[in-house]
Amino acid sequence: MSYQKINFTPGPSQLYFTVEDHMKQAFRDGIPSLSHRSKKFESIYAEAVSGLRQLLNLPSDYHVYFTGSATEIWERTVQNLVEETSFHLVNGSFSKRFFEISEQLGKKAVKYEVASGEGFVDTLQVPPSTELIALTHNETSTGVSLPLDFIYSFRSKHPDALLVVDAVSSLPYPDFDYSKLDSVFFSVQKGFGLPAGLGVWMVNEKCLAKAEQLLAGGRSIGSYHNLPSLHSHAVKNQTPETPNVLAIYLLGKVVADMLRHSVHRIRKETEYKSILLYNTLKKHSDLKAFVKDERFQSRTVMVVDSGDLTEKVTKRLLEKGMQPGDGYGPARKHQLRFANFPTHAKEHFELLVDTLESM
Amino acid sequence: MSYQKINFTPGPSQLYFTVEDHMKQAFRDGIPSLSHRSKKFESIYAEAVSGLRQLLNLPSDYHVYFTGSATEIWERTVQNLVEETSFHLVNGSFSKRFFEISEQLGKKAVKYEVASGEGFVDTLQVPPSTELIALTHNETSTGVSLPLDFIYSFRSKHPDALLVVDAVSSLPYPDFDYSKLDSVFFSVQKGFGLPAGLGVWMVNEKCLAKAEQLLAGGRSIGSYHNLPSLHSHAVKNQTPETPNVLAIYLLGKVVADMLRHSVHRIRKETEYKSILLYNTLKKHSDLKAFVKDERFQSRTVMVVDSGDLTEKVTKRLLEKGMQPGDGYGPARKHQLRFANFPTHAKEHFELLVDTLESM
Repeated sequence: MSYQKINFTPGPSQLYFTVEDHMKQAFRDGIPSLSHRSKKFESIYAEAVSGLRQLLNLPSDYHVYFTGSATEIWERTVQNLVEETSFHLVNGSFSKRFFEISEQLGKKAVKYEVASGEGFVDTLQVPPSTELIALTHNETSTGVSLPLDFIYSFRSKHPDALLVVDAVSSLPYPDFDYSKLDSVFFSVQKGFGLPAGLGVWMVNEKCLAKAEQLLAGGRSIGSYHNLPSLHSHAVKNQTPETPNVLAIYLLGKVVADMLRHSVHRIRKETEYKSILLYNTLKKHSDLKAFVKDERFQSRTVMVVDSGDLTEKVTKRLLEKGMQPGDGYGPARKHQLRFANFPTHAKEHFELLVDTLESM
Repeated sequence: MSYQKINFTPGPSQLYFTVEDHMKQAFRDGIPSLSHRSKKFESIYAEAVSGLRQLLNLPSDYHVYFTGSATEIWERTVQNLVEETSFHLVNGSFSKRFFEISEQLGKKAVKYEVASGEGFVDTLQVPPSTELIALTHNETSTGVSLPLDFIYSFRSKHPDALLVVDAVSSLPYPDFDYSKLDSVFFSVQKGFGLPAGLGVWMVNEKCLAKAEQLLAGGRSIGSYHNLPSLHSHAVKNQTPETPNVLAIYLLGKVVADMLRHSVHRIRKETEYKSILLYNTLKKHSDLKAFVKDERFQSRTVMVVDSGDLTEKVTKRLLEKGMQPGDGYGPARKHQLRFANFPTHAKEHFELLVDTLESM
């Protein structure tokens, strides 16, 4: 193998360290040309789903479906779970995109927007008729993470709305109480350290019932990837279309590796590594955390205000074998982003903070 | 490498023989964790598209977009190219699914259906108001292929309708005159011999204009994967979402391999191999071609009426290292399917026909 950098970009990110070996085994076992209607595929599908259930402690009334991307899940969520109105907490580019997709699909999408890098106040008002409340647990563009209690508070205040959480760049770190949520989704190229090309959509029975209700009312909820179609195939451990079989296989293998390591340890290590970086930023004279309010500082995507030093820091990190993530969009000139996913070792973070401290 | 069977299933099928080496190189070069907003990704995207243009002799007014599957392209086609009415030539499970998706999306979908294994008569009537005519070049479930002249005949008779061709299990074999068509699509796990998880959608300017017209008229044409969104990203060699980067990389590499081999040779070899099998079936006392009319016999997916011998033939082929494809759906008990893709060698087909002749 050639020398490779430690990849701190927030996604696609550093591969989970076992992925290359699993890919080799996949070729030895004929997985890349396996029929998606075979018994062997069904067992691969079942292994990935049961592993995820265990890793995330998913309640039995939750179902797991596969799509092409988390972007697709934004669209399918709106198609299947919104008749008229959705409400979006917007604090960056990705939460905004979810809002825009609802508008594009002809819904009355309402947003509550705060400035980049900010969290939300507990007193924000949701319109009473809202069918769906969309929250982005971890805004990948700004490094703002929403506290779990804040997310759960919408459940008691709006028990009739479906509570949907985009956890694209945070899972498997957050220990969600899924009984207080209705739908959670992610894509595999971030915290799970897999090649891009698979979205994972987890929904409870209330979501299925809503999609069925829209369908019975004559609404179009899409075709092959509407919830009833995804569900009728999932109960057979199948997908409506020929899916990204390799990605489902690799997901199952990596989830099994994570279970062996223990998700509790993954969570403790994530916190430890994030503290290393945030402590360094607190003491640093020039490099600062972009998110000021500690309650909203993400553990999994940390954004650094690097100002005029951006280019110099990038160069130094690359020399030491580390690839930082650019700031998102226009922030690329004065910010850097650092993913803190399960595959990033403590030693990677120690090298990172040593390098930043020396500047 | 462990011993592997020659896979004649029509898809996912036998990998193109260079795929495993390309996958190893991809890992050496960090492709699985490459950012889809990087210059390197843009060059990978450009390489895949320019290779396809050359391989398929695609006119310059055609654009190439990537989706998660060909199933997704059925849905996107209807969303973006049909305001009210689509017309479908149905002669098997896959052409029927395209028709059903149009219905599910609330369109007035009209079908002209013939029995399984049959072709169509030249005199079939298309309703005058049809906006889109959907043809399946190669019906994977039955092994019926439509002659190119038959397909082109719709162009002169219905110049105002968009002519859309599902070439999922035939490309790169057919030498289409794309100037007589408006949209052609395929998925990579069949003729291109790649792992599943990528659809390739080729459209001309008329399709783009139609989508823009529907959008301007206030119609919802989807969100991230509507044609204007796919197009605005494609001109930058990018995709709206984080795509299956590995699959786009592998597609570019395999297309380059096919260009080195020459598409002309691929076509001649495909014809030669298909003649081997059809000639064997003509002479065989028990095994017969399911498609009786030679004008409609597919070169790329050949279906054999194996009747009571189905189990015995399957067992014998497996003993000799060959995996036949099951008959589709209820036909699995009395039919077998054999893919004839570029990766299937003449020697594979010689071994196949020798084995069938001995039974």
